[in-house]
Amino acid sequence: MNRHDLALIGFGGVNRALAEIIHDRGEGLADELGFALRVVAITDLRLGSLMQSDGIDLGAVLGMADGATFAGLTGGVAVPQNDYVIRSTTADIVVEATFTNPVDGEPAVSHVRAALESGKSVTTTNKGPVALRGTELNRIADAQGVRFEYEGSVMSGTPVLRFASDALPGLRVSAVQGILNGTSNYVLGRMETGMTLADAVAEAQALGYAEADPTADIEGSDVQLKVVILANEILGADITTADVERRGISGITQEDIVEAAADGKRWKLIGTARRDDAGEVVATVEPVALPSTHPLAGISGPMNAVSFDTDLLGTVTVSGPGAGRMETAYALLSDIIAIDAHQRALAEATR
Amino acid sequence: MNRHDLALIGFGGVNRALAEIIHDRGEGLADELGFALRVVAITDLRLGSLMQSDGIDLGAVLGMADGATFAGLTGGVAVPQNDYVIRSTTADIVVEATFTNPVDGEPAVSHVRAALESGKSVTTTNKGPVALRGTELNRIADAQGVRFEYEGSVMSGTPVLRFASDALPGLRVSAVQGILNGTSNYVLGRMETGMTLADAVAEAQALGYAEADPTADIEGSDVQLKVVILANEILGADITTADVERRGISGITQEDIVEAAADGKRWKLIGTARRDDAGEVVATVEPVALPSTHPLAGISGPMNAVSFDTDLLGTVTVSGPGAGRMETAYALLSDIIAIDAHQRALAEATR
Repeated sequence: MNRHDLALIGFGGVNRALAEIIHDRGEGLADELGFALRVVAITDLRLGSLMQSDGIDLGAVLGMADGATFAGLTGGVAVPQNDYVIRSTTADIVVEATFTNPVDGEPAVSHVRAALESGKSVTTTNKGPVALRGTELNRIADAQGVRFEYEGSVMSGTPVLRFASDALPGLRVSAVQGILNGTSNYVLGRMETGMTLADAVAEAQALGYAEADPTADIEGSDVQLKVVILANEILGADITTADVERRGISGITQEDIVEAAADGKRWKLIGTARRDDAGEVVATVEPVALPSTHPLAGISGPMNAVSFDTDLLGTVTVSGPGAGRMETAYALLSDIIAIDAHQRALAEATR
Repeated sequence: MNRHDLALIGFGGVNRALAEIIHDRGEGLADELGFALRVVAITDLRLGSLMQSDGIDLGAVLGMADGATFAGLTGGVAVPQNDYVIRSTTADIVVEATFTNPVDGEPAVSHVRAALESGKSVTTTNKGPVALRGTELNRIADAQGVRFEYEGSVMSGTPVLRFASDALPGLRVSAVQGILNGTSNYVLGRMETGMTLADAVAEAQALGYAEADPTADIEGSDVQLKVVILANEILGADITTADVERRGISGITQEDIVEAAADGKRWKLIGTARRDDAGEVVATVEPVALPSTHPLAGISGPMNAVSFDTDLLGTVTVSGPGAGRMETAYALLSDIIAIDAHQRALAEATR
């Protein structure tokens, strides 16, 4: 049976959830997937670095005491030697799941670049490298004959990018439109029950939907990164965040909500990328009062959704979780499955 | 460039729309798809049969005067010799788009069987053969080394079956739940505005959503066929319509609608197939008052949707058109693309 060796860069919630899936499912997972998975390296800001080319005991790592580091394990040190580990690991797939840096994408961009340059495929859930350096990184992947996969960069494990590339063959997609941030969508929903924006944000924070600093969610910069990814990936654009006009929901008042409801409408924070008549891709993030019959109007709470406008089929929509530890770990697993399928197809073709 | 020759069985709205796509797009379509399409046979109850192994002039056929038959064309006769044409055509793909017979699936079942037995792949949008004889017909296809594809049997071109088989790798789907009939969904939506069931049905008929006899839509037997397909295709069951408990929307009153609305709920006609704790697939069609946060609650008007309950990703939903001439013709095109891809993969593997 074929096997993939993984290096996990960042061992927070998402990569930890992936390790749990691999550990808990054991050989059953390999039977289901048709290939085995083994983790041979882990790096983490707090835990340090761990390399074991014959496979790390994930049970031991997942059960480590609070405050312990990898220094206590064979092949482990207390400091995260990301670049060294990425370049020298025996892994064939690097799983990048560090934090998103919306300014320059670092250090994730460097992690992805180092992995691709050293001939390894990469899966990431990190919007930064994809939105800010996607073109460059895809070029390196192509030149190296490896894969760069990032389904989880938009809507966690809900297969939006793969839906567009695989499930709509023969269709021309003219626009992509989505509810791409669960926090702002939750807040707007709560405002519909009479809550103020500030109270709704506080509630979202208490529930763990919103960050301590909710600006990226409320002001639309999180959605902005995702719109860049959708525009470039699905409409074949080559835009950056600066090309996406952005307005968040902080200007939406109780009166706006009530007025829209009287018209049978709901305010939603909508990210859009659309090919205009001249063939240019125009991208925006802005609150829109949608009529209740709009495919995105019914997307409630922390759910996310993307609608695709097509020539022969009209509008088709995929909705599902946009966040969550296990949901995002599944995005990584689906990328690994895609990398494996691609390698198999290549092996068939060059036999 | 590879080419597929098609035999169109039934030349009503759907196959006519497919012929329009092929005719109107011309060589551009071949460039986009990577293979050419040619129609070499057409049969129709009213028009008769037409066979031209070097390709039928679709412009001439689409422009035929009302009341004319194929008898006036080279290779044409005024009677539909379906079985003869299906077995003797030089087409490699038979496109079955006759009417759905919910009792025994005929004559479509015989059409599909004849095509598969004579070594041709089949695409159909017809629920009858798939729901009532799917297991048998798939077995013949496998034995013959050809494909039997039927994406359009559930939600026209909206890719529900292919989403389940291709876009959710590594996930265990425990339940499938859908709004699978646009007419009943439209009627329920109109009842929410205060209309009676009878008036809403009459309006749906006037708009062309509902048939002259709306029983199959209103009493859920159309959904029942689709639930059988979803259960067998996605949950690996082997059930028939008799296994699907069915209740339509004719018992839903204005009071039910008002009462649900007061609770923030909406009545929807829901088709469900679910694997129970014992591993058995239980399937039902019934009206359900869904809370507004349910992924299917916001599906309005003639739209359709299917939700998939999965282990790692929770619930994911695909929504889109459930009917329409061009939308259903696209289902056929997407099946043809899948047949082509499968043949290519097979050719690669056996090189």
